[in-house]
Amino acid sequence: MYLMILTIFVLTIHSLTNAKYIVNRYDDIKCNLDTKLINEIASYKNVTRMIMDEIIANGHGHNMYQQYSNFIDTFGARPSGSDILEKSIDHMINLTIQNGLPTVQTEEVEVPLWVRGHESVAMIKPHPKNIAVIGLGSSVSTPPEGITAEVIVIRSFKELEKTDDNNIKGKIVLFDAHYITYGNTVRYRSQGASKASKKGAVASLIRSITPFSIYSPHTGAQFYEANVTKIPTAAITLEDADLLRRFQDQGEKIILNIKMFNIHGLKKSRNTIVDLKGKEYPEKFVIVSGHIDSWDVGQGAMDDGGGMIISWFAPVILNLLHLKPRRTVRAILWTSEEPGLIGAAAYLNKHINELSNINFIMESDEGTFSPQGLDVAGSNTARCIIAEILKLFSPVDKMTNSGGPGSDITLFVEKGIPGASLLNENERYFWFHHSEGDTMNVQNNVDVIDCAAFWAAISYVIADISIDIPRH
Amino acid sequence: MYLMILTIFVLTIHSLTNAKYIVNRYDDIKCNLDTKLINEIASYKNVTRMIMDEIIANGHGHNMYQQYSNFIDTFGARPSGSDILEKSIDHMINLTIQNGLPTVQTEEVEVPLWVRGHESVAMIKPHPKNIAVIGLGSSVSTPPEGITAEVIVIRSFKELEKTDDNNIKGKIVLFDAHYITYGNTVRYRSQGASKASKKGAVASLIRSITPFSIYSPHTGAQFYEANVTKIPTAAITLEDADLLRRFQDQGEKIILNIKMFNIHGLKKSRNTIVDLKGKEYPEKFVIVSGHIDSWDVGQGAMDDGGGMIISWFAPVILNLLHLKPRRTVRAILWTSEEPGLIGAAAYLNKHINELSNINFIMESDEGTFSPQGLDVAGSNTARCIIAEILKLFSPVDKMTNSGGPGSDITLFVEKGIPGASLLNENERYFWFHHSEGDTMNVQNNVDVIDCAAFWAAISYVIADISIDIPRH
Repeated sequence: MYLMILTIFVLTIHSLTNAKYIVNRYDDIKCNLDTKLINEIASYKNVTRMIMDEIIANGHGHNMYQQYSNFIDTFGARPSGSDILEKSIDHMINLTIQNGLPTVQTEEVEVPLWVRGHESVAMIKPHPKNIAVIGLGSSVSTPPEGITAEVIVIRSFKELEKTDDNNIKGKIVLFDAHYITYGNTVRYRSQGASKASKKGAVASLIRSITPFSIYSPHTGAQFYEANVTKIPTAAITLEDADLLRRFQDQGEKIILNIKMFNIHGLKKSRNTIVDLKGKEYPEKFVIVSGHIDSWDVGQGAMDDGGGMIISWFAPVILNLLHLKPRRTVRAILWTSEEPGLIGAAAYLNKHINELSNINFIMESDEGTFSPQGLDVAGSNTARCIIAEILKLFSPVDKMTNSGGPGSDITLFVEKGIPGASLLNENERYFWFHHSEGDTMNVQNNVDVIDCAAFWAAISYVIADISIDIPRH
Repeated sequence: MYLMILTIFVLTIHSLTNAKYIVNRYDDIKCNLDTKLINEIASYKNVTRMIMDEIIANGHGHNMYQQYSNFIDTFGARPSGSDILEKSIDHMINLTIQNGLPTVQTEEVEVPLWVRGHESVAMIKPHPKNIAVIGLGSSVSTPPEGITAEVIVIRSFKELEKTDDNNIKGKIVLFDAHYITYGNTVRYRSQGASKASKKGAVASLIRSITPFSIYSPHTGAQFYEANVTKIPTAAITLEDADLLRRFQDQGEKIILNIKMFNIHGLKKSRNTIVDLKGKEYPEKFVIVSGHIDSWDVGQGAMDDGGGMIISWFAPVILNLLHLKPRRTVRAILWTSEEPGLIGAAAYLNKHINELSNINFIMESDEGTFSPQGLDVAGSNTARCIIAEILKLFSPVDKMTNSGGPGSDITLFVEKGIPGASLLNENERYFWFHHSEGDTMNVQNNVDVIDCAAFWAAISYVIADISIDIPRH
């Protein structure tokens, strides 16, 4: 009797605290979930704890990290269209089978090949100096002698619009847009060349999309608009962007010679699909995903080796632990994400008539540092269910609503499929992103293993609960 | 009367607080300074405030920063023995005269020239990969075809000693010593090649001397011991050092091809001396200094453009403010510090019979970030006087006792001359040091101007007080 009073008291305190907690964390949703469902979700506490213990404390996570580190050191950068990417895909197929899961298949995709050749930028005026440079993916080459032209430093698309075409014509435009957020600033990389070309520029450069630099240029995809003259485009460091800005502010004439030689083509690649078949609804999928390709610099350890490995690991470890959820847990290792979600678009196209079978879709492509929770897109009820599930993982229970979680999976979320991306302590992510700095040194085993544990356990719960995640 | 009581009360509180403060900050010294001297030092409060106000608030510091930024952007890297270094020295001479101080002279010094040519490291086994590399200053070249050899990764000199010569002979030694402090770890850079050579190595590499990297190699001086076979030596990034370490730990055979081509020679350079003549003891010097040369990468903005400019500025601004201290304030822009304190050694040698005239010697060569105080070497009384002077600059009043302040001035401090180096918030200094990352972006005008204000004002007080700084 005493015990019961005490228990009621504790529960009251707990639920009050929890209530406040929910208001703080999930204050954009109003939840009215059925008590039965709440209790059902709470009943997963033991199994999620078991899964995470097996991964974190019992050596499974350690083995995964070793396989990850070995994969990254063996293959390094895995650009779209390269032989090394295909070899790395073969390796992951074999590794899946070696880890006891034979249900692995691939789906062929035609992907762009873009091979970086010699690249250089030489400052000629106001005085000779080498400028570190990295071409942007899909950029055209310069003529063999390069392009020698005056530079105009422009802070924004607005400033470009306002500038008279005669001040742009025949020049190299340097977009010196300071990093605010990736989402905000990346358009200078993806659209800059086309916008500069329309005003008559002969080449364009961008200030690298990063908040911090040790003289490191950052590459990434760019896209030429139709019917626009394709001009060569590349990124320079924050340091040199600032230098050129200072020269322009002092009225100095800046002349650069830009040389870029690339090879373009099309190749075959593959999305890799690893299934842990559901015991009740094998046709229904909870997809966990990351992309296996990377840029051609660094090792692609962070982007997206980490996200790829923890997603691959979810069905693998659940199978090793003899846990069969009701629905199928499908890991997808997307190919050719970097040139523009090529693998994901092919999957969407191929499975366009089966989209109703995707119960929930997850992606990790923004780092595998210390996990914090999920960025979730979906209906109010969908988000309430995920919020309830996240309570099992406190303190890894943060839930945000950016509207567009993930990279590849945005294509599916746009179709109304509920989905989520991994939130993690990735404050320094863009320091290394798409640069030579994206190596195993950025990663640490404790964080990656924690991410893997959270990722596997939460995908299990979503795949196993009695109800589907409702759509809008 | 009320006022007097209040004053006494405030002074009591103040001195109590101060007393506690002194114990916290300067607890390695016991001071018993004459009250007259304490009062004399305190009487400089107004003039130090005036100097600092003129620099920080009245535009003089802003002008200096503009001259600094312009100097760095115009000349960039200024390696020992280069024409650009000599041009930058000419520029500073002219700038001194333009700023109203004609008492500028130079003293010729013979300095080493070491020109970096092509450098590359290619991993051949376990698989092909480019390794970013930067040769260490004074390294010999490889044969034209490079040196192709197996790598042995060694953590410390102790481990090297323990390793059988047969395991070193014919190999490339990689010193994979993790950064502890610069002082502790830099010996792998300065002595590594000789120690490896003695055991039969054909080349040596070091893990760059830095606690943080975005795939950035860091150069620096190295010194061959006499009668040791000179082997090529270079630095690689933390990322690749860790990669090679992981390969070795897995039992993989590592083979590298190292190519390095350099030109060696001797050239004439100059120490630059800017005097603000003392009104009572013009033959006595308070020296403020920094080095004008830099490594051949980055812009040499931080190392030591900042220290050079604030030291140059001390006599210049005091002259502009019509402040003539009792002793001469002499700014020295050392040449050829990076290859091994060449300019400072020449000055010491030339003035060896006049060392008693150096009352105090200061150097800024560890950054010009937010100023914190001084690292002071000298007798107990000397340090008590400087501590008392530092009180004028609270909260910039920290005093440490490393035993060897500065770089160039260590040669003078070793001779018993009291001296100090600038303490500043330089926690990230070695992230950029001796790399392409040492650019104007590392600096900010507020910090550099604050350093300049502190540096000029404190050198004025030391040059003007009634007593010399006593020696041991």
